[in-house]
Amino acid sequence: MKSSELGLSALYRILKKAGAERVSDESADELRRIIEEVAENIAKSAVEMSSHAGRKTVKAEDVKLASKPYIK
Amino acid sequence: MKSSELGLSALYRILKKAGAERVSDESADELRRIIEEVAENIAKSAVEMSSHAGRKTVKAEDVKLASKPYIK
Repeated sequence: MKSSELGLSALYRILKKAGAERVSDESADELRRIIEEVAENIAKSAVEMSSHAGRKTVKAEDVKLASKPYIK
Repeated sequence: MKSSELGLSALYRILKKAGAERVSDESADELRRIIEEVAENIAKSAVEMSSHAGRKTVKAEDVKLASKPYIK
């Protein structure tokens, strides 16, 4: 992603909620970079799933299927 | 996550950028739900990495290590 879609403060809060006592600015930025990359990869896969199903509209079921490799 | 940290419009844009002709509202919401889950899992692992390294501050290197299972 060229410009960031996700707010840095959201990632900062997620790190704090996960139990971090202190969070460096770089760590929140790194988490944002990674999460955007994961979101892009899932989104690309979801588009392929919708094409595979003969649709032009991406539906929740496409995203669910595309995200399986990322959910433990 | 109880309340959503990430904006729905950001996930919608990511799906469009990935090549989606049309995007259902439910699919953007599903992508948000999944991405937040992934972010929480990486954040929890990063906190463990920082403890393991004897630090109270989460650094970018902790997030990088914690995200390895999610980056292809």
